[in-house]
Order: sequence, then structure tokens, then C-alpha cells
Amino acid sequence: MSSPPRIIQPPLVVVGSANADIYVEIDRLPKEGETLAANNGQTLPGGKGANQAACAARLNYPTYFIGQVGKDNFANLIRDSLQSSGVKLDYLGTVAGPTGHAIVMLQPGGNNSIIIVGGANVSWPRLDGGISRLNEKAQQLIRRAGAVILQREVPDSLNIEVAKIAKVSNVPVVLDAGGIDSPMPPELLKNVTIFSPNETELARLTGMPTDTTEEVLAAAAKVQLLGVQQVLVKLGEKGSILVNKDEPPIVQPAIMAPYVVDTTGAGDTFTAAYTVALIEKQPPAEALRFAAAAASICVRTKGAIPSMPDRRAVSQLLEEHPAKEMKKVIAKFIEQVNISGSDEAESPTKRSNVNSPKKVRFHDFEDEQKEKSILGQSVQPVSM
Amino acid sequence: MSSPPRIIQPPLVVVGSANADIYVEIDRLPKEGETLAANNGQTLPGGKGANQAACAARLNYPTYFIGQVGKDNFANLIRDSLQSSGVKLDYLGTVAGPTGHAIVMLQPGGNNSIIIVGGANVSWPRLDGGISRLNEKAQQLIRRAGAVILQREVPDSLNIEVAKIAKVSNVPVVLDAGGIDSPMPPELLKNVTIFSPNETELARLTGMPTDTTEEVLAAAAKVQLLGVQQVLVKLGEKGSILVNKDEPPIVQPAIMAPYVVDTTGAGDTFTAAYTVALIEKQPPAEALRFAAAAASICVRTKGAIPSMPDRRAVSQLLEEHPAKEMKKVIAKFIEQVNISGSDEAESPTKRSNVNSPKKVRFHDFEDEQKEKSILGQSVQPVSM
Repeated sequence: MSSPPRIIQPPLVVVGSANADIYVEIDRLPKEGETLAANNGQTLPGGKGANQAACAARLNYPTYFIGQVGKDNFANLIRDSLQSSGVKLDYLGTVAGPTGHAIVMLQPGGNNSIIIVGGANVSWPRLDGGISRLNEKAQQLIRRAGAVILQREVPDSLNIEVAKIAKVSNVPVVLDAGGIDSPMPPELLKNVTIFSPNETELARLTGMPTDTTEEVLAAAAKVQLLGVQQVLVKLGEKGSILVNKDEPPIVQPAIMAPYVVDTTGAGDTFTAAYTVALIEKQPPAEALRFAAAAASICVRTKGAIPSMPDRRAVSQLLEEHPAKEMKKVIAKFIEQVNISGSDEAESPTKRSNVNSPKKVRFHDFEDEQKEKSILGQSVQPVSM
Repeated sequence: MSSPPRIIQPPLVVVGSANADIYVEIDRLPKEGETLAANNGQTLPGGKGANQAACAARLNYPTYFIGQVGKDNFANLIRDSLQSSGVKLDYLGTVAGPTGHAIVMLQPGGNNSIIIVGGANVSWPRLDGGISRLNEKAQQLIRRAGAVILQREVPDSLNIEVAKIAKVSNVPVVLDAGGIDSPMPPELLKNVTIFSPNETELARLTGMPTDTTEEVLAAAAKVQLLGVQQVLVKLGEKGSILVNKDEPPIVQPAIMAPYVVDTTGAGDTFTAAYTVALIEKQPPAEALRFAAAAASICVRTKGAIPSMPDRRAVSQLLEEHPAKEMKKVIAKFIEQVNISGSDEAESPTKRSNVNSPKKVRFHDFEDEQKEKSILGQSVQPVSM
């Protein structure tokens, strides 16, 4: 008996940063020359690239990570974590100097101060005279990928190179806006398929407010003018909105967690899970729901990578909260974000100059029984 | 042919801290809520206990380290470093929570701010009703040790327990004063054989000035009143002074390094090397010279443990600068520290209330040829 032929899935390729995140809990910042005792400390693997790769691999999608670490102990921390999540590390390079790391000084009241050592994440070789930063094998990997995810914790020029290689091969490129907040290079944006900022990043990039859904739609439309086909905006506990060029936007409310322990990595989880669903040809509305479920699980556990769900957990949450049950939630969401209906979503005064979406489309939820939504439980805000 | 019977050396036992020292180079401290990029970063194994154990083992003396690390990646960093230095780790425990670590924020001008996470170093079990923190095997190890070294980066009560066990078995206890600057428990001091502060620590402990040799001698004599037999004061580039209860003090000038890269760990090197020489029955003056040579090599390389010399390097430096060549150096030292001769070293007004040493004894240096002292080369201050 021969086993049935295995369908080869085109891999997901995440290009980006890998970091050791060193958390210290302090009552206040030290002064110059002062030695202070911390109340506690913990060091965890992180970096938006590593987080997103780990999430995709946990969701059981074949995932490669293209990144760089140094020759130090933090590299082991990252390698162990990615490996145990199932990420393929054939393209994880080792360079001189430290692995990227960040000191996160947690202070009462949540005003955390952070010191970032870019290290290996920013020490990619310079791109001279069209010579690629990536070796031929890495380029081939990108060409045969199902999708590529980028973020902004590695040099823009590396991201641009990857996005161009992908675009030529018709490989969708998802750019998570998280990372450095320097101006977005137009050359990057125009080679990207889906651009995914959170509301803060979207506001910073466009210089526009993003407090209401209408404002978010207007800002997303402005980004589309820069050559991006789709804008996927993460709104934390308010959910997410996918703005597609020639279609009405799709709104997905957050699947609220019954309790929130730590929102670190929730945005990375959302981006990675959405991309996995995208390669798996789930319709956009389903992909959004899949990503919302993954993010909802992520916030229930401390840390980024340790909190990322496997496929089974996401499937289970989606079964517990099927689309048809979401009607009430959607109704509540519409009320909250002040969209009374699809046609009324426009605000012509605000969007006079932008390529405005014509309709706000909610994916169809059937009007049915089970009303036991998790919204009934005590919930806390989730930022992604 | 049978090989000659091997002489079994009683081991050196270092009880203390093991740390990951995370250095980040920043232009200024971040404000609350601010994210700053560092110019560079490096993470090295450290902690005074681990440093001293590594130094003794590098000097090829059988050395055990009794300490605690957490279940994290920093523990591997420390374990690897100690193991490759030759330290025996049979008594290195693993506990819940983080390995001790320190964020050292290096700022222009040298005003470094430090955040310390005590972690495993301070999470020794409480001592209740006479129940020991140390298991029976560790206690036995201390009883059969050639000497024990302590510092102040683990709980005082652990140090007191170790010192008491050692004292009962006539095992010399060397207490390096470095670490936390809380008041010194009298119960610790009176169970210690040699107390070794640097000039700052001596000043802090006694509330007396330590700028001149006379002041150092007066302060050391005050410490002796608390029950310590010998006080070994580290004076950085000014050398060191051993104050013994019933003998005149011995002065050892620093063996100046031709260039100073990093003084981190120089004090730990001095303490450990002195103790090794002590177990090996070198006379105190020779032991001081041995320690000075080890410290002189330490400051020529970056880091603490990576800069610690092996036995061969120390022997070679001592050969290059034999005692008989030191006369000029000693003369210069005497001039610098304002001791014109042995009898004149006293300052009765300053020492009216203390058990003052009667003579400053310089070990005998012959008046001879080779005057090519390293003092002729460019030197920088060395703090230990």
C-alpha cells in the first residue's frame, strides 16, 4: 500500500528580528552613577520576526525564519525557542557582535523604559551595487514561498530587497508596521501586498487620527494611495479592519479573552495567524476570525512566544465561538465604533482626497440560538 | 614503575554569587516610557563569587564553587564559563526564578547606572531553628577545605553559617568586602580570618578616611577590634597592605600594567590569587606579590573572567619583575603614600583609640642591577 501523495505546502517565510527581551521590574529608574536593586527579572526570547515565525510554526504551518543572531548566549535562547516551536532555522545566520537584545524596565504605572541593542538584527551587510544581502538559496526560498512576512526591526534596505524578490515571483508580502518608527520608505510600501499597522502606527504614518472606525478607514485609504493593495489594521480590543482596494472593508471584532495576563506578542500573533490563514486560502473574513482567535489566546499567558497557541487551541476557540454567535458582538461593536450601517460609514469631508472605500461589509452572521458570548464575562482591554 | 604518590591539595571553596552582567552603552539614560537605542551591548559572566572561583581555578588550584543559579539561559552562560575555567561545579545548585543578573548602563563620563536582579543569589532557603542552608555534603566540603572565600552578594546569614563551619574546623576564611554595602554583621566578621576591603569599602565600614597609608592602617586597626585577625586592603594602583594583628603591616605596591583596558574583576583576582598563595603556604609577602601580579594581568583584557590569568602568565610576570627589582618602585610608593620610614608611619593622634600596628614592614628587596621597571611605561590608574 502506498501512502497518498502528500500535498506540498509552499512555506511561509518570515524575515526579521530575533531578540532577547530582558525584563526588570523596578520601582523607579536609576540615576546616573546609581546602583538599584530590581524587584524581579526575567529574560525571554522575542523580536517581532522571531515571534511571528514561532506563531506560524505553532499553528503547524511550515515556516522558515531568515534572520541573524550573534555568537553569544542569547543566540541559544532564541534558537532553542524557535526550534521547539517548529521553525526551520536553515537560514538563521550567525554574525560577529551581540544578538539583538532589549532591556525592558517595567515601572509602576506601566511607563516602561526600553533600551534596545540592535546587534545582529541591524548588522546585515551593506547592499552595494545591486549585490544582494541574501545568498542565492535564501532568494530561492523567498521565490517559492506561499507568503513572506516582514516587520521593521531589520534594515529597510533588507526588507525592500526581500519584498522586490517576492513581488517578481507573485509571492504575497505582509508588512507588519511594528518596529522602528522612522519614515516608511515608499519603495518598501509599493512592493508590499498587505500592510498591517496597529492604530498608533497607522496614525503616526499618515499623520491622521485613528480613534474612530471612520478615521481608521480614511487613514488606511491614504496608505493605499502609496501603492499597497490591502491594509490590515489591528485595533486591540476593538478588533481589526481589513481594507481592500476594490472591495468594502471587513470588520472583525476582537474575540475577547475572559482574562488578560499579558498582551505582549498579541499583534505579532494576529499578523502571523492571518498570513497562515491567507496561504491556506481561507476567505479574508475567515482569516480575520482565525487571527482574532489566535490573538485572544495569546493574551491569556505571559510572554510573547510562550503564549502563542497551537492550531488545536485556535480551532477549539473558533468552535466555541462560531461566526453565527457573533451577531450580538458585532451589533455591540458597531454601536461602540459609531458605524450605524454600511452606507453611513462614509464621511466625505474627511476623505475628500483619498481613495475611499464605498462600503463597510460585515461578514454574514446568522441570527441564531446560543447567545452565551464571552463578552458577558469580565474583560480587560487588549492592545495588539 | 609506579608513579609517585600524588599530594592531595585541600580544595579552595568559594561560596558566593554568580551573575550575568549585561553591559549596554548608551548616550544617556532613558526617561519614563521612552525607548532608546544603545550604541552597543555585551553580556558576560560575572558575580564576585564566580569571578573569584574562576580566578583560583585558572591559577590551577583545585576550586569548588558553592552557589545558586536559576533555570534560564544565564545559568548556561555561567556554567560554561566556570567549567571552562576548571571550577568544580558539584555544589552549584539550581533553583526556581532567574539567575542573578545586572544591567550595567555605561554612560559617557563613566557614571554608570546599574540595576541588579538578585535572583538565585539571594533566594537561598531561610535558616530556621538551626537547620542549615547547606546540605551535609557541602558542609563536609567546607570542613576539609584549604581555605574558604566569601563576598557580600549572597545573604549574610549564609556567609555566617559557612564562616562558622569553617572556623570550627580551623579552615581559614577570607571575606572580600565587595557586594552589598549594608552594615557588616559582627557575627560574620568575628568568624573571619582575613577581611579584604578596598579603600572605599574600608572607609564606608569604619566611617574613617582612607586616603593615606596612615589612615588605611588606622581604619584597618579599627576593623581588627571587631575580631578579624588580618585585614588585607586593596588600594588599586597604590597597591595593597596586609595588616596582621601582632605583626607589622606589609605593603605591596601594584605591579603596574603597561596599559589598562578594563579593571573589572581586578579586585576579585587579587583576593582569589592571594588566597591560592596562602593555601600553598607562600609567605604573606610573596602571596601579596603573587596577587599583585595576577591583578596586573587582569586589567589588560576586557571583562572579568575572560581577563583572569593562568598560573604560567603570573609566574612569567613575577620572573620579569623579581622582588629585587622592586626597590625603586617601593621607594616611589613610599614617597607617594607619604610613609618616610617604618617608625615614622605612626600617627598617634589618629590612632589613639585603636589597636595600632607598631611598624610598617617592607619585604626585603636587594639593591641590584636591572632597573627597567614597568613604571617607566605609560600607566593608567587601576582600581580594584
